[in-house]
Amino acid sequence: MLKKCSLSEELPVEEYLIEKEPYYVPVGNEIEIFMSAYRNKLPVNLKGPTGSGKTRFMEFMAYKLKRPLVTVACHEDLTATDLVGRFLIKGDSVEWSDGPLTKAVRHGAICYLDEVVEARKDTIVVIHPLTDDRRIMPIDKLGVILKAPSEFMLSISYNPGYQSVVKDLKQSTRQRFVAIDFDYPPAELEMKIVAHESGVNEEMARYLVDIGHRIRNFKQHGLEEGVSTRLLIYAGKLIKDGIDPKEACRIAMVRPITDNTDLQKSIDEIISTIME
Amino acid sequence: MLKKCSLSEELPVEEYLIEKEPYYVPVGNEIEIFMSAYRNKLPVNLKGPTGSGKTRFMEFMAYKLKRPLVTVACHEDLTATDLVGRFLIKGDSVEWSDGPLTKAVRHGAICYLDEVVEARKDTIVVIHPLTDDRRIMPIDKLGVILKAPSEFMLSISYNPGYQSVVKDLKQSTRQRFVAIDFDYPPAELEMKIVAHESGVNEEMARYLVDIGHRIRNFKQHGLEEGVSTRLLIYAGKLIKDGIDPKEACRIAMVRPITDNTDLQKSIDEIISTIME
Amino acid sequence: MLKKCSLSEELPVEEYLIEKEPYYVPVGNEIEIFMSAYRNKLPVNLKGPTGSGKTRFMEFMAYKLKRPLVTVACHEDLTATDLVGRFLIKGDSVEWSDGPLTKAVRHGAICYLDEVVEARKDTIVVIHPLTDDRRIMPIDKLGVILKAPSEFMLSISYNPGYQSVVKDLKQSTRQRFVAIDFDYPPAELEMKIVAHESGVNEEMARYLVDIGHRIRNFKQHGLEEGVSTRLLIYAGKLIKDGIDPKEACRIAMVRPITDNTDLQKSIDEIISTIME
Amino acid sequence: MLKKCSLSEELPVEEYLIEKEPYYVPVGNEIEIFMSAYRNKLPVNLKGPTGSGKTRFMEFMAYKLKRPLVTVACHEDLTATDLVGRFLIKGDSVEWSDGPLTKAVRHGAICYLDEVVEARKDTIVVIHPLTDDRRIMPIDKLGVILKAPSEFMLSISYNPGYQSVVKDLKQSTRQRFVAIDFDYPPAELEMKIVAHESGVNEEMARYLVDIGHRIRNFKQHGLEEGVSTRLLIYAGKLIKDGIDPKEACRIAMVRPITDNTDLQKSIDEIISTIME
Amino acid sequence: MLKKCSLSEELPVEEYLIEKEPYYVPVGNEIEIFMSAYRNKLPVNLKGPTGSGKTRFMEFMAYKLKRPLVTVACHEDLTATDLVGRFLIKGDSVEWSDGPLTKAVRHGAICYLDEVVEARKDTIVVIHPLTDDRRIMPIDKLGVILKAPSEFMLSISYNPGYQSVVKDLKQSTRQRFVAIDFDYPPAELEMKIVAHESGVNEEMARYLVDIGHRIRNFKQHGLEEGVSTRLLIYAGKLIKDGIDPKEACRIAMVRPITDNTDLQKSIDEIISTIME
Amino acid sequence: MLKKCSLSEELPVEEYLIEKEPYYVPVGNEIEIFMSAYRNKLPVNLKGPTGSGKTRFMEFMAYKLKRPLVTVACHEDLTATDLVGRFLIKGDSVEWSDGPLTKAVRHGAICYLDEVVEARKDTIVVIHPLTDDRRIMPIDKLGVILKAPSEFMLSISYNPGYQSVVKDLKQSTRQRFVAIDFDYPPAELEMKIVAHESGVNEEMARYLVDIGHRIRNFKQHGLEEGVSTRLLIYAGKLIKDGIDPKEACRIAMVRPITDNTDLQKSIDEIISTIME
Repeated sequence: MLKKCSLSEELPVEEYLIEKEPYYVPVGNEIEIFMSAYRNKLPVNLKGPTGSGKTRFMEFMAYKLKRPLVTVACHEDLTATDLVGRFLIKGDSVEWSDGPLTKAVRHGAICYLDEVVEARKDTIVVIHPLTDDRRIMPIDKLGVILKAPSEFMLSISYNPGYQSVVKDLKQSTRQRFVAIDFDYPPAELEMKIVAHESGVNEEMARYLVDIGHRIRNFKQHGLEEGVSTRLLIYAGKLIKDGIDPKEACRIAMVRPITDNTDLQKSIDEIISTIME
Repeated sequence: MLKKCSLSEELPVEEYLIEKEPYYVPVGNEIEIFMSAYRNKLPVNLKGPTGSGKTRFMEFMAYKLKRPLVTVACHEDLTATDLVGRFLIKGDSVEWSDGPLTKAVRHGAICYLDEVVEARKDTIVVIHPLTDDRRIMPIDKLGVILKAPSEFMLSISYNPGYQSVVKDLKQSTRQRFVAIDFDYPPAELEMKIVAHESGVNEEMARYLVDIGHRIRNFKQHGLEEGVSTRLLIYAGKLIKDGIDPKEACRIAMVRPITDNTDLQKSIDEIISTIME
Repeated sequence: MLKKCSLSEELPVEEYLIEKEPYYVPVGNEIEIFMSAYRNKLPVNLKGPTGSGKTRFMEFMAYKLKRPLVTVACHEDLTATDLVGRFLIKGDSVEWSDGPLTKAVRHGAICYLDEVVEARKDTIVVIHPLTDDRRIMPIDKLGVILKAPSEFMLSISYNPGYQSVVKDLKQSTRQRFVAIDFDYPPAELEMKIVAHESGVNEEMARYLVDIGHRIRNFKQHGLEEGVSTRLLIYAGKLIKDGIDPKEACRIAMVRPITDNTDLQKSIDEIISTIME
Repeated sequence: MLKKCSLSEELPVEEYLIEKEPYYVPVGNEIEIFMSAYRNKLPVNLKGPTGSGKTRFMEFMAYKLKRPLVTVACHEDLTATDLVGRFLIKGDSVEWSDGPLTKAVRHGAICYLDEVVEARKDTIVVIHPLTDDRRIMPIDKLGVILKAPSEFMLSISYNPGYQSVVKDLKQSTRQRFVAIDFDYPPAELEMKIVAHESGVNEEMARYLVDIGHRIRNFKQHGLEEGVSTRLLIYAGKLIKDGIDPKEACRIAMVRPITDNTDLQKSIDEIISTIME
Repeated sequence: MLKKCSLSEELPVEEYLIEKEPYYVPVGNEIEIFMSAYRNKLPVNLKGPTGSGKTRFMEFMAYKLKRPLVTVACHEDLTATDLVGRFLIKGDSVEWSDGPLTKAVRHGAICYLDEVVEARKDTIVVIHPLTDDRRIMPIDKLGVILKAPSEFMLSISYNPGYQSVVKDLKQSTRQRFVAIDFDYPPAELEMKIVAHESGVNEEMARYLVDIGHRIRNFKQHGLEEGVSTRLLIYAGKLIKDGIDPKEACRIAMVRPITDNTDLQKSIDEIISTIME
Repeated sequence: MLKKCSLSEELPVEEYLIEKEPYYVPVGNEIEIFMSAYRNKLPVNLKGPTGSGKTRFMEFMAYKLKRPLVTVACHEDLTATDLVGRFLIKGDSVEWSDGPLTKAVRHGAICYLDEVVEARKDTIVVIHPLTDDRRIMPIDKLGVILKAPSEFMLSISYNPGYQSVVKDLKQSTRQRFVAIDFDYPPAELEMKIVAHESGVNEEMARYLVDIGHRIRNFKQHGLEEGVSTRLLIYAGKLIKDGIDPKEACRIAMVRPITDNTDLQKSIDEIISTIME
């Protein structure tokens, strides 16, 4: 079952266009700020906890701006070469293959580096010349310097609650980005999102958001991170599918966020009280 | 004795189908929850100690759902490339070989990443786009983005008792999975399983389960982890084969779980009392 | 979309010439000192915080001296080989490709190693024979010793506020460079720069510089690094584009430099007071 | 003196058969337990100090069971690939070469992983599917899943006195093995072994065993590990060859086990007393 | 601009001959000692701070002895292979390329390993057989043992002020070398050197040496290392070129050696007093 | 100057024969013990400080036994592959090249692993099967198991004063070797050696040995290791060549062993007193 594959099957940049408008409800003036940053060619840093809508926001903005969105999930082994590109051997010739960052620069796309602090330091340095007024990208291996077209934009995200001394964005990198704060949506809005995405009615969605808020208050009592809107939607989907609501909350909103049995018990009791 | 082997001998996905119904006795409503998660395309996280039946449960669910089960035992050196696939040189051409995750996505199988926290961080990031509503898998090296068919499911397991600060599932990963707790089965059920799997009679099985429970109580007294149902079955098999029951318990239930001679002595005495 | 590319597309050194005079306003006699160092073939070390104009100064000097400027952003994985060059396989022949340092030496350019302490130790050792009176560069892999022409100059930069014990410039390296201090420009000058670069009027620029100075005073109260002139310009651009000035300052001058919510609140209040 | 060697010279599995009955005197019922484990297809873990006869026992059992014995001395750099096998390039074709574990599975041999905790984690994970009731070995690189024949057995050893937190067998691995304790043989038996293996008479052997026991008592006084039976035999051989008995004991039984000069002196005095 | 280069362009050893007598003024009897060590084939270790003339001394001795001088700047990534040599693929044949140490042995040159403690441990072991009475160099990869001709000499340097526990020369290496102490030259001599090398008159040189001495006294007050003669010469060159003497001293003698602003201020005041 | 070299130039084992009797004066019965160990096929461990004659002793024994001596200087990067051998590509065929250990086994030579604790763990494991009664060496890559001829012997050395917790010989390795203690020779003997090797008369040699003894007494006062006989000989050679005796002692016996200036001063005074 090995497939003979031509090495030239690189994904055309059009594939990165968002075709359907993503469901996104703005919390503040984040859309206007992003538009202004885009017009002024300022790189943008989205700061906020897991599941607070950063990725969805990027998809929404890319849709609005009608630019392809090249997303890179950063991780410890992501190297500058992975971002920029490499030579591949094909038969007896050698062909260059653009990395995602190069592809975005070349085609004026929006490049989004998700959880950028996870990447290796050399990756982060690679974006420096793209984030000052030169907006260039030297590709040593090709011997070219790409000039980013005005449509190109660079955006990164990170979760300030996570950063340790070892993994932090250096000031020389941070100070190259305008920064927009993200947080969980306010109650009324979150309720509408949960209902819309999971299919439960607004009353049940209100219960779920209520529980979500109480869980988030446990952050002062040892919880590492609050429950995300995504998990509220998971609970809603299980309930809609017929699972007992209390069980669904335990399975989708408690067990995923903590292994601490005391915390689990406290939250389970809150769920029982509310769902009664 | 070197075998000339064609490089195209990739294992067909049908080989991953579970043909015989695995012996699995449910403890709670874990089967219904898994079925609902499957229908709603929610990824599932099985949390529980060693030998509490997580792998067997996955085999049972795959059998019930009639989907191939691609199991990956995660370890420190498991890279994203191992999961996704790689190019192999064959003579003078180059051929792509799907990794286990890609194979599961392509064929709508269930992919089960066992002890997922053992894997390197880049492996874990690779599953992110498969676990939100996009359900996609970008394969950079092929330049394609696979869309997972609705039959595809991703499942992971981990042992909460083990996790250290260094090896823990990040919240940004955890919050993508519905989580089902696993634990040793209740006494009556465990007795039946031990009798069924080892061949000893119910009385002997009851003795073994009784000893197992008492050993598990030693977790408060310094035992790292309780004795698994699997080791109870090992003891039963040795007894069935003629080994002295006390000896069998020592060999199969005590020495495997601890090197602490004080603990060994205390447990040996319990065994002697019960087996008398 | 894979491009067949000839491996000989190395960037001609002329491409590194700065064609348009960069906007640079001298703070002290740094231009005369640099010119004298250049005439005396002394290597130069630019010391100063992020965004204090070191890179811009290098571009300005290269423009004035009419020499190409080869800039290398140093990072943890930058090896001596990256700087010096390597053999590349092309079809069935092997061709040498100059690294950026070799290219600068060969063509009498100015080589600027930005944030040099980030580089690996072997990189730093490679520059030693270029920084004493021999001014040579042995290329072991080619078996040649290049003698730097009198036009060649080596310059490095680093941020003294950052250095830890692990990442510090060794005395045997430091003592090979004349060192010029850089700091944020004085208020009147910074105001002019902000107005010139962002397009806001001088009154607004004065407000921004005033806020910038107050933020920099927070360094005694736990702020890791002051706000750079670049971020003041970012704020100016957003304001010029119609974003509310207070919002623009928060987005461009506060959130980028700290995740500490107490610090953010204190600075936000200062902004509100000044912008009222 | 470079030898032209055909790459196909893989060692036939018959070479791993033990042809002559190894000299082994059982201490307890370890032979019966091993036989029962073999019949029940249970993997076996031999726990005990250096030189307590674990390797000899494995050779004896392999001889008794008439199965080839494939021994792997584990070490920090032993990878899963080393155990499973790899592709080797031969001229312009590529051939697969079985690793020792694969060879043992394929031919129904006994595979013995000596000092298993020394191996890297991925090696240990590789044996998991062979140690539960599936008894399979997936070879990703060949795309095959080997089913172990009923003659195949997996055995490991480790020294509980050595394990640190860093290098310990995980419970999820430990609980897959029946565990047999090993220790130095009782005095009468050890005396017979020393006499048999070194050629000294029983009186001298008794002296040596007596000294050995006293040295082992020093474990409470800072000695890292007791003296092994093997070293007693070394001393016997030197004495048989004409070396002064006291000198032989110092050379073969004291200097090899400790560098602590105080301990050496104390033990030397004991030797002088006994040998007088 | 890729150059087609023949791989055989290895640098002939004659290129390593010092053609012009280097300017070197002896401080003590170091020349006689070195000559005697050379006649007796004893390896030499030059110990001393940065910029105290060790490299210049080696060039002077190589000139006097009319032997080529092969200098290797040691660094963390310098491997034994780098020193000894390697096989290079050229078209379809493989050719051996001597490393710098092998080249020196083969041609009876002086090999100078600068800052030897920076090198990896395997590098240092490689020089052991060259530094006892065997004076041989086994090249495993070629299968030859080179015998060093009587003209060959090995010399190393290191800075005792730098060594940490991690990076220290092992006694088994140290005790293979005769060791000569180096330090800054006495005042009168240093004054002459500064005047000769920078072009300033003797009065100005005396001022610079005076300042240098006072800076060196700050080593008791937290200065990591004293100012080297080289930096005194740098200051002289800037002054000769028209830079204000006080400014020149700050730029060339203070900023390069410390980032501590208190120290900088104290030394600046001394400079102002002396230069007035 | 690249040499076309045939890859088959492996060094014939005869080259490892010691042709001239090395100068070695026994201190105790180490020669008899080594001979007995050789006859009984027991591996030998030489324990002692730097420069106490371990390497010379091995050369002497190899000469006496008329066996080739294959010496391997162990270091951190020495791998099992380096010891055992590897395949080398030659044109379009692949040839096996024996490593030093394999060569010694194949030809019945004495293999001496100098400073064995420096080697990586996998290297040390490789010698295990050669050091028990099997005396075999499995070469996985060739698929052969070599049986060592009776002439083969394995010997290791290490310096007990150096070992840290990280770098220590494991008991499972130590207990495979008979261990012989080495130390500096007694005064009268050392005097004779120094006179013989350096050419100074016995009176001067006595002075040097006297100084050496006093330096060794400084080990209680912070000296890391005593001065070796080799350094006494170095001093003698310099004196014989006309260097002032006090200067020669400082250069050859004090500066090489310590960077501590207080220790240097104390020892220099002793030298002045004795040499007066």
